[in-house]
Amino acid sequence: MSWSEALFRPQRVAVVGSVGDGKIGRVLVDSLLDGGFTDVVAVNPRGEGVRGIPAVASLSDLPPDDLSVDLVVVASPAATVPDVLHDAGRAGVKTAVVITAGFSETGNVQGEVEILAAARQAGVRVVGPNCAGIANTHHDLFATLETHPPAGEVAFVSQSGALGGAVLSWAEEQGVGISTFVSYGNAADLTEVDFLDALREDDDTRVVALYLETVSNGRRFMDAAARLAAVKPLVVIKSGRSESGGRATQSHTGSLAGADAVYDAALAQCGAIRVSGVEEMFDVCRGFVHLPIPRGRRVAVVTNSGGPGVLAADAGEDAGLSLDAPGPTVLARLRDLLSPVCSLSNPFDLTVQATEDDYHAALEAVLSEYDAAVAINVNTPYLDVTPLARGVVAAARTSGKPIAASFVAGRPAEAALPVLADGGVPNFTTGERAMRVLARMSPPPADRANGDSTESGGWQLTPTSAPQPLPWSRRPTEPEAMAWLRSLDLPVVDHTVARSAEQAVAAARDLNGPVALKVVSAAILHKSDCGGVALNVATEAGVRAAFRRMAALPPKGSFEGVVVSRMIQNPVEAIVGLMTDAQFGPVIAVGLGGIFTEMFRDVVLRVAPVKDEEARRMIEELRGIGVLRGARGSVLRDVGALARLVSRISRLPFEFAGLDELDLNPVFLFERGCAAGDARILRVSDRSDGRSD
Amino acid sequence: MSWSEALFRPQRVAVVGSVGDGKIGRVLVDSLLDGGFTDVVAVNPRGEGVRGIPAVASLSDLPPDDLSVDLVVVASPAATVPDVLHDAGRAGVKTAVVITAGFSETGNVQGEVEILAAARQAGVRVVGPNCAGIANTHHDLFATLETHPPAGEVAFVSQSGALGGAVLSWAEEQGVGISTFVSYGNAADLTEVDFLDALREDDDTRVVALYLETVSNGRRFMDAAARLAAVKPLVVIKSGRSESGGRATQSHTGSLAGADAVYDAALAQCGAIRVSGVEEMFDVCRGFVHLPIPRGRRVAVVTNSGGPGVLAADAGEDAGLSLDAPGPTVLARLRDLLSPVCSLSNPFDLTVQATEDDYHAALEAVLSEYDAAVAINVNTPYLDVTPLARGVVAAARTSGKPIAASFVAGRPAEAALPVLADGGVPNFTTGERAMRVLARMSPPPADRANGDSTESGGWQLTPTSAPQPLPWSRRPTEPEAMAWLRSLDLPVVDHTVARSAEQAVAAARDLNGPVALKVVSAAILHKSDCGGVALNVATEAGVRAAFRRMAALPPKGSFEGVVVSRMIQNPVEAIVGLMTDAQFGPVIAVGLGGIFTEMFRDVVLRVAPVKDEEARRMIEELRGIGVLRGARGSVLRDVGALARLVSRISRLPFEFAGLDELDLNPVFLFERGCAAGDARILRVSDRSDGRSD
Repeated sequence: MSWSEALFRPQRVAVVGSVGDGKIGRVLVDSLLDGGFTDVVAVNPRGEGVRGIPAVASLSDLPPDDLSVDLVVVASPAATVPDVLHDAGRAGVKTAVVITAGFSETGNVQGEVEILAAARQAGVRVVGPNCAGIANTHHDLFATLETHPPAGEVAFVSQSGALGGAVLSWAEEQGVGISTFVSYGNAADLTEVDFLDALREDDDTRVVALYLETVSNGRRFMDAAARLAAVKPLVVIKSGRSESGGRATQSHTGSLAGADAVYDAALAQCGAIRVSGVEEMFDVCRGFVHLPIPRGRRVAVVTNSGGPGVLAADAGEDAGLSLDAPGPTVLARLRDLLSPVCSLSNPFDLTVQATEDDYHAALEAVLSEYDAAVAINVNTPYLDVTPLARGVVAAARTSGKPIAASFVAGRPAEAALPVLADGGVPNFTTGERAMRVLARMSPPPADRANGDSTESGGWQLTPTSAPQPLPWSRRPTEPEAMAWLRSLDLPVVDHTVARSAEQAVAAARDLNGPVALKVVSAAILHKSDCGGVALNVATEAGVRAAFRRMAALPPKGSFEGVVVSRMIQNPVEAIVGLMTDAQFGPVIAVGLGGIFTEMFRDVVLRVAPVKDEEARRMIEELRGIGVLRGARGSVLRDVGALARLVSRISRLPFEFAGLDELDLNPVFLFERGCAAGDARILRVSDRSDGRSD
Repeated sequence: MSWSEALFRPQRVAVVGSVGDGKIGRVLVDSLLDGGFTDVVAVNPRGEGVRGIPAVASLSDLPPDDLSVDLVVVASPAATVPDVLHDAGRAGVKTAVVITAGFSETGNVQGEVEILAAARQAGVRVVGPNCAGIANTHHDLFATLETHPPAGEVAFVSQSGALGGAVLSWAEEQGVGISTFVSYGNAADLTEVDFLDALREDDDTRVVALYLETVSNGRRFMDAAARLAAVKPLVVIKSGRSESGGRATQSHTGSLAGADAVYDAALAQCGAIRVSGVEEMFDVCRGFVHLPIPRGRRVAVVTNSGGPGVLAADAGEDAGLSLDAPGPTVLARLRDLLSPVCSLSNPFDLTVQATEDDYHAALEAVLSEYDAAVAINVNTPYLDVTPLARGVVAAARTSGKPIAASFVAGRPAEAALPVLADGGVPNFTTGERAMRVLARMSPPPADRANGDSTESGGWQLTPTSAPQPLPWSRRPTEPEAMAWLRSLDLPVVDHTVARSAEQAVAAARDLNGPVALKVVSAAILHKSDCGGVALNVATEAGVRAAFRRMAALPPKGSFEGVVVSRMIQNPVEAIVGLMTDAQFGPVIAVGLGGIFTEMFRDVVLRVAPVKDEEARRMIEELRGIGVLRGARGSVLRDVGALARLVSRISRLPFEFAGLDELDLNPVFLFERGCAAGDARILRVSDRSDGRSD
């Protein structure tokens, strides 16, 4: 029996902890019994039973040949938990849910280490500690302190117990049925990764929703998420986006939340759908449970009222859907079918006189061309809404394409809701929300499509051969970094290191045109901030003056010369960066140079490595991409060469050990090719002294 | 008696139209009687009464000395409406609500013209036609086809009848009470402007919400909205933001929706709060009804659960609030008050053990420093939530600052809701929504504060003296436009018009450095698209070649020379534009030049004119403002000079008659001063031939 089978489909459950009135153990026993799970045994020092269930003083008191307890739910004091796990192991128990709090979340890290050690030794897999329990509605199992949700096809996995509880309490009102619930708390043993793997194979679960504050291991998470998302939708709420949010997540979980943009990239790369909060999560889950996946992003709005139709269309365009007008065939068909007072330009406004047949026919007609539809009905107290809902249901059946409804509002619309529900058409509070659900469910636009960007082995890349060491015994200077890149056949601009003014003048003469000069010194990290860069120097006197000035900049003895390089005329500049994220490891970034990056944050990230095609998609996602495509009369730039450079750089951390950060800024882009104009490299071993951005 | 008094507080109401079963007239009579308004008279050709109310065949059959009917509600066929209005006028009726449809919305514009003519002649003010009626809950008046909402302090004015009905149906569930409802349909006579003015003076209304598809007269609307917003909050949903939305609004109302960005600017300029849809409208209205206005943008989150607290904090930062950590005084106070397991870094996490006193004390402490708070409670079925709600209510009373609550979810939280409601603390579905409400209610950040940007006379500027004519008999060429700007003392770059290659060479020699050359021809609108611009020409031969090439560009006979101007080195470029919006008239725009504007849409608009200070705020709102502030080692630019130019340009349409568009692109910005490098002017009379962008 696998741990997940034992956890979610146990034969018998033991509850460890006092079952006195108001005690957590009692709440758990009540929850189990009230949920319909009868084979429960109480475990507490006094061997006290309750509500007729058997009781023992210790798990070791279970008859030695009774191996039917698969799951213990632990609510006894923190200090007792390791012993409970040892007892459980001896009694042949496979899994434990530790509700008890007071571990790493309050600073008691040692207690948590002991839990894991006991679990390993006893052969027991542990959920928690500091969690709100688990539930499997299809097994009548509610080993949780929280509300019993209605049964259904959405699994909810939550790092926060309280948020998990809120979701369960809310599920009924939101029309979402739950298959499995897991609150995994401090994740001493089993983590979100294990639950994603288990739920991937759970036939009762069609959609998995996950509330995440942080991940323990970014790459293992990505692998599990990608495996799951390949077979069923994975909807993720990741909190801690903002600075203050990040701060609270940190204090709450004892671990540093990864930078939010990296989470965004990582979730998209493994095919997960990131939503903004619980309301959107419910909406999107309902969409996935009830609707077929749209095949494209063209959506029609069919409404009996102009205003709400327009609000929905606005929301659709904001979410990146296409709400364009119908083609001539559909238009002609609609003209035949509908009254001339109807507006047929998408939104399709059937007016207040819309009938059951109008909704049915109009939806069928538009869905012969569009990928999905939002059916809006705003009802008034004096009209019967049920036939209109029937028209929508009929169209959903015959078209086989997704129709999201918004029949509003309040009492006048109530009669429509059971008709829609019985017909399998999800109804949303507003047309805007219906539209956002379709946007989340729709395939990405063609130029953003997520290709197979992972290596065949997944995200936990093991280098084919042992990674090489970096060639420096200290942090490399700019020319050392540039020389290394050149040795790897990566494109860098022509440059020379001059150690005297005469050498600088000679180098400038060789380059035959205006030059740039940059100081070389291991003591200077940010050359331009201290006057260590001179651009567009066109005369010998200028070169000499710049050299002299720069030679005086570094602390005595640390001046190593000046890089002289050709000025690039009419440059279009990009930046390519590599950083190491605490959760996800190497991350690759590309942006347009200078102010584009700094003012407009026009940078696209991916968890590394990326293949050439994925690097190209990164570049296409830049808002300023037009600059490279020759907008405003500028010259076309070699996007392919930049993509190859990005892809190549993204692989370096897997080929060389100890590479922490790498910045190419600028990378000059030409009509053909590109070349790094500067390189900054930070090794892992440089972090303590050098990381001061 | 004013029209608004007669409309919203009539003594007696006549319903014109059949009162047979299922007829609109009958629905209206039922609505009035069921709502508690008893003095209703039915008017229909057969003089048929219903439910005991008196009836006459025509309004002219009312006794001549009975002047007590103040309002007629008209549901008779479209063709009869003008006669009904004439009869009403003769009977001394002041106001009519025309429910009847079939006018401009179906193409029957003439019918609507006749309604207005009849209304004017009869001295009757008209709401509608094609509307869903009006209500005044404080007068038990429900002259509408829609649901009766609970009474309260929010007035709702809707251009769409259906959306108005949906809002009324939804109000109870959303916890919003309605004072007055107006569905104004086609607005043949009374428009949103009239209702805003009436509601400004309505003591029963504390907040006005408005659903708008288009405005009839932008400047009259701005004046009315500004007058209202000066005394009570005005919350606006404006639909038709997107392209397809715009299309539908157009087809729905028969009028062209103004560009959405102009609406955004206009609404902000008159102090209205634009929300994204009906849900946010309800949320914001509840905030304004129940909460004091925050004095600043610093908000604290007090929660019993980390995850939901972080989600709320994320939403707050996204909405531009500050969620920073507490100062040392508050921190020390909280440390004294609370258990050491609480997290005190904002979100303030009181943990699941939070008590009534904890909520009360923590909220009081943080509100001694912060401007507002969101109080979150995620309850579990085994805890009593009412004391916690009492703690929040107590803190709201003693602090006098706004506390928005989010007690969730479902049944476990239900017991808290009446406690919060009785205590005047609004509860929101999620902490994120509570946070967005506070953001909408908070004063704008200091650098965005809306100063008094209007002229004392309001937005319907009448020029102090008669506007002057523009000096050209045809569309001006670039040098003509530049010369005109210079004559107005506006800064333009040094330039000369050369009519021969020799003149061009001489001009270039005078300028003593590289020059720019641009073709002059009335036949060429977009010079750079056809090769009519040469930049950075540094040699005599180059000037000659460029001149020759440009002389050949325009159609024979239309070449008027070449502008020769000095190349600006290391330029920072802005654009300043003036356009005429169909709804709002002159609109002024400023952006950073070139790619910033085109790729990043980094342009800020205002309805013109703007004073210098407001022009400066426009510039500060540019995302790329750092470029002007000397970011990345660039030189500081003269933002003040640019602001003066923007302000001055924004006044030109009021000083000169017939100015339709004006583009200064680029405007070069210097350390001191600025100068237009090019000018394009379109007169109203040029529109037919020249408007091809």
